[in-house]
Amino acid sequence: MPNSAAALRPAVPDAGDLAAFAEQLADLARPIVRSYFRTPVGVEWKADLSPVTVADTAVERALREAIAARFPDHGILGEEEAAVGIDRPVVWVVDPIDGTKSFMTGLPLFGTLIAAVAQGRAEVGVIEVPALGDRWIGIAGAGTRFNGAPCSTSAAARLGEARLYATSPDMFAPAEGAAFGALAQKVALRRFGGDCYAYGLVACGHVDLVVEAGLKPYDYMALVPVVEGAGGVITDWRGAPLTIASGGQVVAAATAALHAAALAELQPAAR
Amino acid sequence: MPNSAAALRPAVPDAGDLAAFAEQLADLARPIVRSYFRTPVGVEWKADLSPVTVADTAVERALREAIAARFPDHGILGEEEAAVGIDRPVVWVVDPIDGTKSFMTGLPLFGTLIAAVAQGRAEVGVIEVPALGDRWIGIAGAGTRFNGAPCSTSAAARLGEARLYATSPDMFAPAEGAAFGALAQKVALRRFGGDCYAYGLVACGHVDLVVEAGLKPYDYMALVPVVEGAGGVITDWRGAPLTIASGGQVVAAATAALHAAALAELQPAAR
Repeated sequence: MPNSAAALRPAVPDAGDLAAFAEQLADLARPIVRSYFRTPVGVEWKADLSPVTVADTAVERALREAIAARFPDHGILGEEEAAVGIDRPVVWVVDPIDGTKSFMTGLPLFGTLIAAVAQGRAEVGVIEVPALGDRWIGIAGAGTRFNGAPCSTSAAARLGEARLYATSPDMFAPAEGAAFGALAQKVALRRFGGDCYAYGLVACGHVDLVVEAGLKPYDYMALVPVVEGAGGVITDWRGAPLTIASGGQVVAAATAALHAAALAELQPAAR
Repeated sequence: MPNSAAALRPAVPDAGDLAAFAEQLADLARPIVRSYFRTPVGVEWKADLSPVTVADTAVERALREAIAARFPDHGILGEEEAAVGIDRPVVWVVDPIDGTKSFMTGLPLFGTLIAAVAQGRAEVGVIEVPALGDRWIGIAGAGTRFNGAPCSTSAAARLGEARLYATSPDMFAPAEGAAFGALAQKVALRRFGGDCYAYGLVACGHVDLVVEAGLKPYDYMALVPVVEGAGGVITDWRGAPLTIASGGQVVAAATAALHAAALAELQPAAR
């Protein structure tokens, strides 16, 4: 009986099923994250000096258990624990708290990131913002919704009209920082400090361009369906699609034209 | 009758009366700001390249009218219109939208700042955060409240344990940036992108240090009672009290010891 049931289960659920489950995971994460926010939380510093909190660990544990219970044959790649089965047809890529520094300092812009990656492609992405109750969900072929309503990117096509975000100037290696600086000179406005929220703002048309570096797969895989579903373009700095194996350079743009203009500036530091 | 009523009115209302009216002003601003947030707003660029929106103008107009109606003998200093009577015993210092770049890009961290300055000293300060419904109010001698509850700064006394914020690296002149950079090397964590919200986080004990430059009186006067009322210290980079005539360098710290440690690092660029 277990064997025939397994045989009937499709190797890759359709995007709607993945999306419904991704939202269940976001529903699971929200109250856990909120229960720790603005309370004293135990903080450790990892080898790369990024902080990890008790809340990170607790949320990732809960997400992993829920995924393993519902889809035991799926892989899981998260920030805090070892990867499981990342060669499987479906891999869940999760970041329990993207923007740990924001979380640790009481700033409500951090998010829980959840991606369903099927055969290497991000089919579903969720940016859940527990402290604000905001949520973006992007589904390949079915668009992006912000708090339940469809959303779309701006029409910005030129650098001179672009509103640019990056989480921090500290995220760039020297050559990357130089390219970013040259780009920033040409935009209408730049602002630091957005974490994943900035990509959601691109999907809603309030921000036109996000350029970052040094990201990990769990930092960016969930962003791909959100930005693409809203009509934007998101790749690495060479213009290649983002995969679990990408190098951590990310550019998200409201339009293909703006994306091309940004790539031209970033090209000297693209890896 | 009007003359005798005027004679009976004290030149400087007590802090409680000023605070109650400051909250009325915040109540007035909140729905106006919200009505413009995440909508297309007309944007102009001022001579210093800071943006101003239709919302800035509308909120400041409403605040000025309310102040003039209630306290016609008080002065008003705002961001968008010419100052009125800044030599009067009480001056209201208001910034309709502190964090205009955040406002313009859909980021909900901007605030409306309202200060009542009596005989040169900030008696009452309000950080109203319309998009989040958050509000800090500090009253000289009566502490600081966040959303109605008393709040206080952290006990952080050493740079090595401090969580540091600044709105942007772009706000510093070269010498200031060098001093800030040296300071940032010694803290536990630094994050950019807070606007006025970062000072509220100091008042709640989530952030320990904010160091900024290039600020105008309407950017910082309201912060003084909020930070001081919560037990913190806020001055210019020389350690002098912040007044309407200060030069725009601001340091806010959770404790006197941390403040002194920060001043020592900033001293080379203090003006």
